[in-house]
Amino acid sequence: MPTKAYSGYLNPKYIPRADLVAAFYIEPAAGVSFEEAAQAVASESSIGTWTSVSTLSKKMKKELHARIFFLNKRTKIAKIAYPSALFESGSIPQLLSSVAGNVFGMKEVKNLRLLDINFPNRYIRSFRGPAFGIQGIRKILKVKKRPLLGTIVKPKLGLNAKEHAAVAEQAWLGGCDIVKDDENLTSMRFNPFEKRLRQTLKARDNAEKVTGERKAYMPNITASFSKMMERARLVKKLGCEYAMVDVVSVGWSALQDLRDENFGLILHGHRAGHAAFTRNPKHGISMLMLAKLCRLVGLDQLHVGAIVGKMAGGKREVKAIGEEIEDTIIHKGRGHMLSENWLHIKPMLAVCSGGLHPGKIPPLVKAMGNDIVIQLGGGIHGQPLGTRHGAIAAKQALDATLAGISLDYAAMKHFELALALRKWPR
Amino acid sequence: MPTKAYSGYLNPKYIPRADLVAAFYIEPAAGVSFEEAAQAVASESSIGTWTSVSTLSKKMKKELHARIFFLNKRTKIAKIAYPSALFESGSIPQLLSSVAGNVFGMKEVKNLRLLDINFPNRYIRSFRGPAFGIQGIRKILKVKKRPLLGTIVKPKLGLNAKEHAAVAEQAWLGGCDIVKDDENLTSMRFNPFEKRLRQTLKARDNAEKVTGERKAYMPNITASFSKMMERARLVKKLGCEYAMVDVVSVGWSALQDLRDENFGLILHGHRAGHAAFTRNPKHGISMLMLAKLCRLVGLDQLHVGAIVGKMAGGKREVKAIGEEIEDTIIHKGRGHMLSENWLHIKPMLAVCSGGLHPGKIPPLVKAMGNDIVIQLGGGIHGQPLGTRHGAIAAKQALDATLAGISLDYAAMKHFELALALRKWPR
Repeated sequence: MPTKAYSGYLNPKYIPRADLVAAFYIEPAAGVSFEEAAQAVASESSIGTWTSVSTLSKKMKKELHARIFFLNKRTKIAKIAYPSALFESGSIPQLLSSVAGNVFGMKEVKNLRLLDINFPNRYIRSFRGPAFGIQGIRKILKVKKRPLLGTIVKPKLGLNAKEHAAVAEQAWLGGCDIVKDDENLTSMRFNPFEKRLRQTLKARDNAEKVTGERKAYMPNITASFSKMMERARLVKKLGCEYAMVDVVSVGWSALQDLRDENFGLILHGHRAGHAAFTRNPKHGISMLMLAKLCRLVGLDQLHVGAIVGKMAGGKREVKAIGEEIEDTIIHKGRGHMLSENWLHIKPMLAVCSGGLHPGKIPPLVKAMGNDIVIQLGGGIHGQPLGTRHGAIAAKQALDATLAGISLDYAAMKHFELALALRKWPR
Repeated sequence: MPTKAYSGYLNPKYIPRADLVAAFYIEPAAGVSFEEAAQAVASESSIGTWTSVSTLSKKMKKELHARIFFLNKRTKIAKIAYPSALFESGSIPQLLSSVAGNVFGMKEVKNLRLLDINFPNRYIRSFRGPAFGIQGIRKILKVKKRPLLGTIVKPKLGLNAKEHAAVAEQAWLGGCDIVKDDENLTSMRFNPFEKRLRQTLKARDNAEKVTGERKAYMPNITASFSKMMERARLVKKLGCEYAMVDVVSVGWSALQDLRDENFGLILHGHRAGHAAFTRNPKHGISMLMLAKLCRLVGLDQLHVGAIVGKMAGGKREVKAIGEEIEDTIIHKGRGHMLSENWLHIKPMLAVCSGGLHPGKIPPLVKAMGNDIVIQLGGGIHGQPLGTRHGAIAAKQALDATLAGISLDYAAMKHFELALALRKWPR
């Protein structure tokens, strides 16, 4: 195991100032000490390689090397400070290639997880963050305080454009504020993007007329870059307020330009695929880290999990992610490895989704507060009487929750809610 | 555990024809059977969700549902056939959001790994593949049969533009065909992109004049989309043949447009970050799968591992990846879960890199053949007498390997090689 070149990176007395600080979970490979593994990570993610090289001067190493200033052998946590000169301003891809690049494949580590990053102020200032953020979204949707209620059109694939619009309309009429496409619905042979967009916006206009409320549609513009931008332009042109994008599938390079193009669209991030690298608690990248990057880039909303739903992700983790994207000052502790000052970056709205149904709304709102979108897909379209009654039931559950009334009590007056609670026992 | 909705996806008698077929490793969660977990995956990655929904008609389900046609409880392998209508032509992001999306986070699975995909002909035809491929690269570099020899300028960060160019020149003069930037070197305060590009190309011109050989530089254009494209244009304008990009950090959406813009640049893919989701053999996405997607999109070269180097990745895996990207017909077996017919898609050149030194060249060439780039970073710049002698030693090792001469014998005549072998014992 060649670890000799990985020395000189330990500095427990160092106090980071303008550095970028990363917190890692590091499990050394057999025969490697924790200190050696941490130094291998610090080296490969800054200026080193597996052997000494003639071209690295002492001065250069002194100025640019990473410093491991915190090590806990028991918890396997190491915190590493990187001089800010190692990072190109305003480039998520370069950041990831540095601190979340080769390191995951090194033989010195058995498992390695990037848990959190504290960004220096100067680095944060090189990004714009969300264009709208929570307040901007609330202003457009004219919903001041309560959680927003949303649905995903289901089945995720199969409906044609007309059927899709009809389902969306039923959801809006029943009480949903927002209707979105699912993550794999883009432009299909049986449901082309433009046709779906036009029909669904017509349905939205009708629902707004009938209900007198603002209704929003989130079409999925996920595609190769130029097609994605073309779709975003069309979305704006046809009078839609939102666009949704699968952040992991699309990637950081395209995401940054989507934000910086300033379409005037609220951007919703779906995280399909994240669990390929976020799920194993010992390896990969934390979901909290992914959420931080989305806020920095400037999405306005992000799917963060549901605590009580069909996907993995516990209460502590999802709550911490919610705080990380919605607060301006983040303190260490309770799921946050590192603090953060978000400066000018606006709060991003947390979207809770994945296996939710009306019965799960009270515990969700209790855990996450009012600044969320509650998204029910199957939990609305699966209601025995169909989408519209499903949306009515969800709205009844939300209204009861906000009024402090138990769902069982509310269900005595509302048969839609009663049917939902019967289909999905809590 | 809500698994009732996940039924009707098993069909062991089904024979896929124009379907897209995916092979998964599926480890069910506690209390879930293998069949249930496989159906949950098949459902969520096609048209289903966690509960029955009123909007999914029987006809729709029959036409569009995925079919699990192969199940092996012992190996935990399942093969799933998806109707091609579920996929948008020419869109890697949509493909991944479908078959490598939500599924990784489902509570029904403890671990899940996408191992391989067999693409239907029609789907393959919606991509262009590499513009140059192996033969195109060999023609430009005027190297007919032997492996290409490359280096990464080291230290990865720290040199200014002038120093970078000087190190590159020494490597070319010593015998390297190709010199590349490292994965986190983009446009730095101490080494801006344009300045580095101009100086390094001047050094290249000089090295070509002195040696009479073709020399190539691979500048790292990794950035947000518009900056990346701007850099690619500059690279072309200044007379460089290559551009390199960090495929995982940049993401699929941008990568597709980079290829489709047809700059006339050979595109080299660095895989920094892949191991966050490829390393755990039970979860995430296989490196082979990542390599297939890169070939489909149309990179000309891809870093595939070194077998004998500093990064994880065994011989069987790296060899299979090499075959997958360089052959036209892929047969099942020996690391390939599924077959493939690459049709019009050109072969992509395998780049072996990561912890290599001259002593490792013979086993590498034996395992991977001649159609590779052998990249030594530390293994060249770490040579006791410096970069130029390091490159000379690497070329001596390559020449000896191709001539069938042992390195120990060659080292008796070549002190550069002798020094390298002494520093890095085999």
